[in-house]
Amino acid sequence: MDFNFNLDLSFAEEKKIKELNEKEIYDVFIIGGGPAALTAAVYCMRKGVNTAIVASKIGGQVADTKGIENYMGYNYIEGDELVNKFSTQVKQFEISYKDEIWVEEVFVEDGIKKIRLSNGKVYQSKTVIIAAGSKWRQLSVPGEKELKGRGVAYCAICDGPFFKGLDIAIVGGGNTGVESALDLAKIVKSITLIEYAEKLNADKVLVEKLADFDNIKVISNAQVMEILGDTAVSGLKYKNRANNEENEIKVEGVFVEIGLEPNSSFVSNLLELNKYKEIVTDKNCETSIKGIFAAGDITDVPFKQIIIASGEGAKSALSACEYLLKN
Amino acid sequence: MDFNFNLDLSFAEEKKIKELNEKEIYDVFIIGGGPAALTAAVYCMRKGVNTAIVASKIGGQVADTKGIENYMGYNYIEGDELVNKFSTQVKQFEISYKDEIWVEEVFVEDGIKKIRLSNGKVYQSKTVIIAAGSKWRQLSVPGEKELKGRGVAYCAICDGPFFKGLDIAIVGGGNTGVESALDLAKIVKSITLIEYAEKLNADKVLVEKLADFDNIKVISNAQVMEILGDTAVSGLKYKNRANNEENEIKVEGVFVEIGLEPNSSFVSNLLELNKYKEIVTDKNCETSIKGIFAAGDITDVPFKQIIIASGEGAKSALSACEYLLKN
Repeated sequence: MDFNFNLDLSFAEEKKIKELNEKEIYDVFIIGGGPAALTAAVYCMRKGVNTAIVASKIGGQVADTKGIENYMGYNYIEGDELVNKFSTQVKQFEISYKDEIWVEEVFVEDGIKKIRLSNGKVYQSKTVIIAAGSKWRQLSVPGEKELKGRGVAYCAICDGPFFKGLDIAIVGGGNTGVESALDLAKIVKSITLIEYAEKLNADKVLVEKLADFDNIKVISNAQVMEILGDTAVSGLKYKNRANNEENEIKVEGVFVEIGLEPNSSFVSNLLELNKYKEIVTDKNCETSIKGIFAAGDITDVPFKQIIIASGEGAKSALSACEYLLKN
Repeated sequence: MDFNFNLDLSFAEEKKIKELNEKEIYDVFIIGGGPAALTAAVYCMRKGVNTAIVASKIGGQVADTKGIENYMGYNYIEGDELVNKFSTQVKQFEISYKDEIWVEEVFVEDGIKKIRLSNGKVYQSKTVIIAAGSKWRQLSVPGEKELKGRGVAYCAICDGPFFKGLDIAIVGGGNTGVESALDLAKIVKSITLIEYAEKLNADKVLVEKLADFDNIKVISNAQVMEILGDTAVSGLKYKNRANNEENEIKVEGVFVEIGLEPNSSFVSNLLELNKYKEIVTDKNCETSIKGIFAAGDITDVPFKQIIIASGEGAKSALSACEYLLKN
């Protein structure tokens, strides 16, 4: 026989997805459509457990990300292209699936986990993986929405290199904002760091480090009024809160760094959350309730990154499968 | 100036790697060459911190893996191809780098971490990320050591072709064992797959594929007692765990596929290890010593998977950078 390691390509074909079924008791019910959820789905299906997945939006925040340079395996990939690749991997399997739907509530009855969707239907599962992600907190000023991806950015780690050599503003003087400034100062030409309060509220050690850079200027006690620009960011308008004077600065980028908001409200009465409303998890991604796991940006795992969320998604799936074997 | 979000492709060019320098105090010193280490390197370099990386082998165990179907972003990719992609991402940056070298010892002097290599040179760093991976676990039965390389093998991908047309045994019914069986079935004459537990614990999709081959026989609930042979493997003795009966099978090769042993001996006197000799880490990948981080298969993070190791690599890098900001 000839020696042949060739791939069986038939395995990579897309399978027909299945409708959700209220009568069925699923092994794993995944809530979310971002990297953590999709990775969990692939791992569960490969384990051969009966899996359902519901998502408001396939791709989560990645779908809104322009260029990704820190997902390993791709020097550069656009957010929607990566989402497609993840999603194709899920669709190799005959998974029960529904998107553009929200979860209203998760509750437990006689040990069975129940998931009530926004269409009123209730589904049942032995385990649940919550990977509903988070959203960037918005400034909600004119220009922000319009110029998103055209100079308005939210993730310094992801998008920093695109602003190499440019003048930018960072809005937010908490740890995220100041850390972003310290990171970006090595790449960009200049940074104007804008803080609403009278002083920066980041850790003192971080604030002190700002002095190491002569290209960072801090404007505090300032309220951002508008992000300026037609097809791309050209400036930012803010109000001096001491004298109500309005000022404009010329910048080619605005990083809004006023935090993330986990999409955890639908489990706030069920699971232990920390003060940031993140779901508290252990090393196996288990939450405060046995058989309910969580992964990705919705959890208290540090650093919100695609590769980290994906790893946690795999972990949560393997933990859920281990739980199924033992219960 | 034109505002342009297009990728600056010059950024993706391979940069000249730098020689390690004993006089320099690095910000981050990464030990390892697998997914965790390479991901950590990309994240550190993107943060703009002064980073060094040393590895005995680029790619770690992934380099020995044939086909990968559970790395998100690729339906299917060969191990060496994925390693190349990771490695190209690292080489975008002017990183201090040395491979084919071993770390003998890590120690701390006046708060500075010191790394002594097998060539006797000692390097200095503010933080260290240990991602040295793991190696194949031994059966530790008579005959194994004696016949290693003479019929006893650990890497199906690497050594499979040597067993063309022969009868072989594979010990271990997890994913690695079953994947090895599926690969080798196309080359060898017959495979006896031996599992200690009552049933194979590999992914169901993998176990189901075993049925495609009529030259694979599974013996479960069996304990390997000895590998037989004088100058080369001639058989294997196992005990039926149900009735304690001992049996012998005639094989000319034995693949031991029972998991991994962390390469942690060089830090066993420095860091807290668990009973599996894995480095104990917290949620931020920090070890028992401040400023020393660990990631990937060498740690106590559950489940050894490329995507999980990569996520942990990113986490360890971001934690190290956070440590640098605060210290």
